[in-house]
Amino acid sequence: MIRTEDAFGREILDYYETGDSSGFEIVERDDGFIMASGLGPAAYFAPFRRWPKAERQAMRYVRGRVLDIGSGAGRVLLHLQERGHDAVGIDTSPLAIEVARKRGAKDVRELSVTQVGPWLGRFDTIVMYGNNFGLMGNRRRAPWLFRRFRSITNDGARIVAESVNPYTTDNPDHLAFHERNRRRGQMAGQLRLRVLYGHHRSRWFDYLLASPEEMAELADGTGWELTRVIDEGEHVYVGILERVG
Amino acid sequence: MIRTEDAFGREILDYYETGDSSGFEIVERDDGFIMASGLGPAAYFAPFRRWPKAERQAMRYVRGRVLDIGSGAGRVLLHLQERGHDAVGIDTSPLAIEVARKRGAKDVRELSVTQVGPWLGRFDTIVMYGNNFGLMGNRRRAPWLFRRFRSITNDGARIVAESVNPYTTDNPDHLAFHERNRRRGQMAGQLRLRVLYGHHRSRWFDYLLASPEEMAELADGTGWELTRVIDEGEHVYVGILERVG
Repeated sequence: MIRTEDAFGREILDYYETGDSSGFEIVERDDGFIMASGLGPAAYFAPFRRWPKAERQAMRYVRGRVLDIGSGAGRVLLHLQERGHDAVGIDTSPLAIEVARKRGAKDVRELSVTQVGPWLGRFDTIVMYGNNFGLMGNRRRAPWLFRRFRSITNDGARIVAESVNPYTTDNPDHLAFHERNRRRGQMAGQLRLRVLYGHHRSRWFDYLLASPEEMAELADGTGWELTRVIDEGEHVYVGILERVG
Repeated sequence: MIRTEDAFGREILDYYETGDSSGFEIVERDDGFIMASGLGPAAYFAPFRRWPKAERQAMRYVRGRVLDIGSGAGRVLLHLQERGHDAVGIDTSPLAIEVARKRGAKDVRELSVTQVGPWLGRFDTIVMYGNNFGLMGNRRRAPWLFRRFRSITNDGARIVAESVNPYTTDNPDHLAFHERNRRRGQMAGQLRLRVLYGHHRSRWFDYLLASPEEMAELADGTGWELTRVIDEGEHVYVGILERVG
């Protein structure tokens, strides 16, 4: 039995090959808290009409050349291509990239969000769907990445970023976790996670849940401004950030 | 954060208190294979009309005083009570027992299947639903338990036992696992599992997936005979065993 670090990609590939949606994404937090996301891998393949409403609405703010961060199975990338955008996807999962390409994605690169640079060309919109604002990682990395995003975008560019507001929970386990984070000087919604799938275990990665206020603060002084928030229920929202200054 | 061994009971209690069915049961096999069952905790609370068809059909074979092994949230026990049976449930999860009692179960004991004895009185039917034939554990324990079941049942008694046929899979991970078991002289469907839920981890326990042929063989010479098999799709079935000799 081969164990790999590409647990996420294996989940994507298995669903792509078998169509079996009985598996659910399992995530472990670094304090040993294990949870199933409640979303099967099918969500990564959903056509536009089945996307969360806030994601569909926020597509109005997408224009020009687009960078899709964490492109996964290509859900967003394929839709952007259909709409006629020049779109580049990046992902760290080789198997997810393989699936996105098989499904018709024209330009996907195996890159971490921290590896983007001007050599990719300039973009008019950066999309972080599927709660991928989480890839901003932590309080130190987020402003650094916002500045990096400035260096790869044109005047008038936008970031369209989905996140989860961590303060809308009343789960005592989650509240205790927020408190632990605050004692450590971290943001309440600062997670360190790995994906578990069958024998496969991803590497641990930082993942940030940020309220709209926190998203605005993290962007402050980096050349981006949060100008609009589109709510999806009480937990999830899409923030629209405009390139300023 | 309090870690307990009653991961299963915590899952049951949380669902009972919050009605949140977004959690899915997560199980780890002792070789590190992690899987979500695809069933939320809601399945443990399902009313009769939502039970698997084979379980509903097999209720025809239930009569007299009944022992419900692994009674969980009381799904089967409450239905038996409604039908007028004198029914005793056993479970090893204190929290699941608490929930079953709150829901109206009259007689639930905190007992492992290996702890049943004539002091519980005699039964006319033993029910093992929700794949609880798995609690027969392994090749050594199953015949021992069948004999124990003889000692606590009346003439003409039946066991109504649900199991999963392990040979109907074509999942390469599962097939490799069968082969590993055979090399060790174990039955192919011999699992060692624990339940993961939030911070909670159950103890490891043996859990047996047996084909109808294997169920018949395990019962052979113990005073029970498999007389009928009711299929639920291609993987799951309910076996009816009659007390003989």
